[in-house]
Amino acid sequence: MASQYPPSLQIRLPVLILFLETTFILIFCFCFSYDRDPQNLQKDLTVYPAFQDVNVMVILGFSFLLVFLKRYGFSSTGFSLCLAALGVQWAVIVNGLLFHFSDGAVKINLQSILEALMTVTTVLISAGAILGKVNLMQLIWMAMVEVTVFAVNRWVAVDILQVKSHVSLMHVHLFGAYFGIMVSWKLYHSSLNSRVEKERSKPISDIFTMLGTLFLWTFWPSFNSVLITDAKEKWVAVYNTYFAVAASAIIASSLSVATNRNGKLSMAHIQNATLAGGVALGFSASIIQYPWIAMTLGLTAGAFSVLGFAILKERLDPALRIHDTCGVHYTFGLPSFLGGIVYIILIIMNSLENLTVLGYEALIESGALSLSMALGMIGGLITGGLLTCKFWKAPPITKYFDDQAYWEFPHLAVGY
Amino acid sequence: MASQYPPSLQIRLPVLILFLETTFILIFCFCFSYDRDPQNLQKDLTVYPAFQDVNVMVILGFSFLLVFLKRYGFSSTGFSLCLAALGVQWAVIVNGLLFHFSDGAVKINLQSILEALMTVTTVLISAGAILGKVNLMQLIWMAMVEVTVFAVNRWVAVDILQVKSHVSLMHVHLFGAYFGIMVSWKLYHSSLNSRVEKERSKPISDIFTMLGTLFLWTFWPSFNSVLITDAKEKWVAVYNTYFAVAASAIIASSLSVATNRNGKLSMAHIQNATLAGGVALGFSASIIQYPWIAMTLGLTAGAFSVLGFAILKERLDPALRIHDTCGVHYTFGLPSFLGGIVYIILIIMNSLENLTVLGYEALIESGALSLSMALGMIGGLITGGLLTCKFWKAPPITKYFDDQAYWEFPHLAVGY
Amino acid sequence: MASQYPPSLQIRLPVLILFLETTFILIFCFCFSYDRDPQNLQKDLTVYPAFQDVNVMVILGFSFLLVFLKRYGFSSTGFSLCLAALGVQWAVIVNGLLFHFSDGAVKINLQSILEALMTVTTVLISAGAILGKVNLMQLIWMAMVEVTVFAVNRWVAVDILQVKSHVSLMHVHLFGAYFGIMVSWKLYHSSLNSRVEKERSKPISDIFTMLGTLFLWTFWPSFNSVLITDAKEKWVAVYNTYFAVAASAIIASSLSVATNRNGKLSMAHIQNATLAGGVALGFSASIIQYPWIAMTLGLTAGAFSVLGFAILKERLDPALRIHDTCGVHYTFGLPSFLGGIVYIILIIMNSLENLTVLGYEALIESGALSLSMALGMIGGLITGGLLTCKFWKAPPITKYFDDQAYWEFPHLAVGY
Repeated sequence: MASQYPPSLQIRLPVLILFLETTFILIFCFCFSYDRDPQNLQKDLTVYPAFQDVNVMVILGFSFLLVFLKRYGFSSTGFSLCLAALGVQWAVIVNGLLFHFSDGAVKINLQSILEALMTVTTVLISAGAILGKVNLMQLIWMAMVEVTVFAVNRWVAVDILQVKSHVSLMHVHLFGAYFGIMVSWKLYHSSLNSRVEKERSKPISDIFTMLGTLFLWTFWPSFNSVLITDAKEKWVAVYNTYFAVAASAIIASSLSVATNRNGKLSMAHIQNATLAGGVALGFSASIIQYPWIAMTLGLTAGAFSVLGFAILKERLDPALRIHDTCGVHYTFGLPSFLGGIVYIILIIMNSLENLTVLGYEALIESGALSLSMALGMIGGLITGGLLTCKFWKAPPITKYFDDQAYWEFPHLAVGY
Repeated sequence: MASQYPPSLQIRLPVLILFLETTFILIFCFCFSYDRDPQNLQKDLTVYPAFQDVNVMVILGFSFLLVFLKRYGFSSTGFSLCLAALGVQWAVIVNGLLFHFSDGAVKINLQSILEALMTVTTVLISAGAILGKVNLMQLIWMAMVEVTVFAVNRWVAVDILQVKSHVSLMHVHLFGAYFGIMVSWKLYHSSLNSRVEKERSKPISDIFTMLGTLFLWTFWPSFNSVLITDAKEKWVAVYNTYFAVAASAIIASSLSVATNRNGKLSMAHIQNATLAGGVALGFSASIIQYPWIAMTLGLTAGAFSVLGFAILKERLDPALRIHDTCGVHYTFGLPSFLGGIVYIILIIMNSLENLTVLGYEALIESGALSLSMALGMIGGLITGGLLTCKFWKAPPITKYFDDQAYWEFPHLAVGY
Repeated sequence: MASQYPPSLQIRLPVLILFLETTFILIFCFCFSYDRDPQNLQKDLTVYPAFQDVNVMVILGFSFLLVFLKRYGFSSTGFSLCLAALGVQWAVIVNGLLFHFSDGAVKINLQSILEALMTVTTVLISAGAILGKVNLMQLIWMAMVEVTVFAVNRWVAVDILQVKSHVSLMHVHLFGAYFGIMVSWKLYHSSLNSRVEKERSKPISDIFTMLGTLFLWTFWPSFNSVLITDAKEKWVAVYNTYFAVAASAIIASSLSVATNRNGKLSMAHIQNATLAGGVALGFSASIIQYPWIAMTLGLTAGAFSVLGFAILKERLDPALRIHDTCGVHYTFGLPSFLGGIVYIILIIMNSLENLTVLGYEALIESGALSLSMALGMIGGLITGGLLTCKFWKAPPITKYFDDQAYWEFPHLAVGY
């Protein structure tokens, strides 16, 4: 219980955080002001409720989704909040400088904060892959690098490949998952095996996770539609996402019972595979024209996710020497990849009569998809390499709180 | 702990779910497309925030309201999600075919999904009455039957009796409660007694239930007003509901202390009776003209609910051989019935000068109320009969998860 | 476990609550009706989503923020709901009579309910200071007095000092904190010491508290902007608050690690100091023109809050014979005071060219700030005096529920 945190890090971590925050404030001071264009403000008014939905998803949903490891109950909520708060500010800065810089200044509006929030999703997804193997300092470095790389990725996609801005942000799941997996690969040490990790969940923390899942599930239509400006496309995105997550939830229940040894529902499947539909729909939410297509896609994504969890995870992960704590590969990685492929197919089918446009668009979207995956993996590798440096090699996350002692020996934690 | 689920069901359940989902997709494929009328899309924009409130109520609120039984913590959230996801799709289909079918096709918009969501409330309320006595397969069958019967009920009320559409959806509480009670009556076996069941709650799961209650309490004004199109009536409904639930919460505290043996607040009263005001207001939220009337109604409904829980439940339930797990009769059934009576009285008083209209309207609303109750009870009886068939008679819900072992012997659940 | 509540109080409490509610209904009956002005209704439509955000903050956020004491898990959610429901009705009455009374009647609209909700925040903050030392009856009396005094305070500020209405409501944090501290001071008995109290938290209840914190954190931009009518100012308030709470969260993590003996994050710091930025921004959210100023203010407020918790609380509280259960002084009191000072400085700097206006405005705002603090403290003292009367001196809050037995000896609470 008295496991002391190395003194050097106790000083380094606060100083690092303070230094980052001061730098942010200075950058904001020199380059950033508020957008006061009345037209944008009016538009923001209708976006605000959906913005708050996304805010709840990122801050509450993802925090609680990661709560299920009983050792990291506190950590995951506390760390997520810290990462999100740092990440949003840094993402506003990087996005601002890359996308909205003109006349030496950047104007901030609700749109900027929203894009920053969605960018931060990458960090929280990656954190899910390495939770329990790193300390807060390492997570913060990862967040800084990841936000930057993803912003560059988006800049290439939007400014060079001419991908639509709202589609470019749907790469977050793909990018975040593969980035996290690569970091996890670099951090792998054989002492961790999935069996031990899995059994660390507790019924109570599982219900908290369910809370996170349900928030994400409920608000996913907002996530997939909030950035779309055309009214028709926006509503189609809402409807499609709604039906896709519904289909995912159902297939998750079905396959979870079918794959379980005792024929019982597995909480991990329900918690994660229900979201696969929303992830897979990200790219194509606004261009799918019929509910049955969205439902089929949601169904397929959910099936991939459960089967990945039930069959692939146990075999592939040890073979590849990856330890993906929360299984982000099967919740976000695979479904998003599937969604990307379907998006390209849909684009091809929508423009079959015009072969020039077809080839061009299909090429661009494939390029953007490959780019996200490549940059995510390369970025993750480099970050993972950085994180294994001696400099911040420190006792893992567990040591921040006495979670273990609390959960296992509650009588020890009670002081009277 | 190793209680194995019968192999036959382990195959049957996934197959049933898959079969249903495939059927849904096929029906959607042949008959359903999206509504792209710009006027509806514009209207949806202002409804979307309230839609998300209702979505949170149904998915999060009702799930967590049912979490309080410590054995069924997982089950209730997992099952609720599965039931809601299946139910919404089926309700969109049935409602669409009954109400919006024209030229061989149905157009879906936010309104359709919203009506489907509210229809599903019936299923979640009924589930509250039989939780712990059935397995997921039985719940799914119940959901399919209940959604269908309720849609027919609404169709008779709206298309034949000319009840307003938004009022017809406020019958969900009444219908759901009596449907559930009747199913519960058919499933009754004397080995269950309320004493045992009641003591199964745990402080932690009680706080989760409180979370569900607070979500429902907070968003109830949205539930009662979201379908109303006239701006004045909408706001009156919001205000009335707000004051009614406030009055309910207060009377619940007061009577809970008064009826408790030790003069303590009972969580069950607080969790349930606070909602009675919102339920009772459902019918008449938009036609009550003064806050004091709403408050009086909320007060009365709350009082009925607490007294029902404290006095009636112990005596009436065993006498009638009913085992109503969550006491849905006193949270939803009685208050809704009271609300229906008050609604008819208010209509009579509002049109006293025109006796022809008066008699006609009072007759219609009484008819609609009786219809819901009758169809709810008959539907419940038939469903209960179906569920007791050998075909899906299987070990109860408990066996899905090892909840019991987890909660009671946490050391057994820890794998290392 | 069988600690019986004194019979006299078991009768008195329900009667008091019923009496209050009946009085409310009578007052509503004679003076209150709904505002049906179409213009207001239209305006309300855009405010409704933010209203629901604030509703969630007050009902869910504050309830769960107070859940962390393991003995008072139930109590804090149950009591908060009861206090909020009573307080809102009483605040609508008092605010209505003081601000909107004309021609013998008061018109209620969403604005009234919103102002009442925000007024109730004072009660919930004060309750945080005395939780565990009073019973529900005492809390109810406190709520009635506090709402009244705060309404008078606002009336003086708005009608006499000409403070803007939305700014006057931002005094809630300052007023509530000092009111609560003074009540706590009067209730102080030496047997309580901060050490014991602090250790009563449990990891699970801490995660619930985190839930409350995250709700407050997420929706704080709505809280600070919802009452502002000018579109530009509204959005600036949203952006400023967003960046301020982000900076607070970060400084909280940094200083929490730095001040902790073992270099670990302290949940209490994270839970409370993250909110300090939002509190401090309250006054000046709409007049700060650059994000970096908001961030600096959020940073400073967060630093004050953590350092207050870590250094001041242990020394100052026993010296002053105060026992501030949840540390509301450091979460709400100090940051709000800091915010008030900064607000006055900003006003001075904004009107440096016009010295007459300057002196006048600075004087008024200083007056309003001093007034809130003075009335809060005097009101708290008087209320504290009243609460120590023999009449309602009764066993503390703990006795309402058998929380202690539940949490500590779960096997006793299980009935089979």
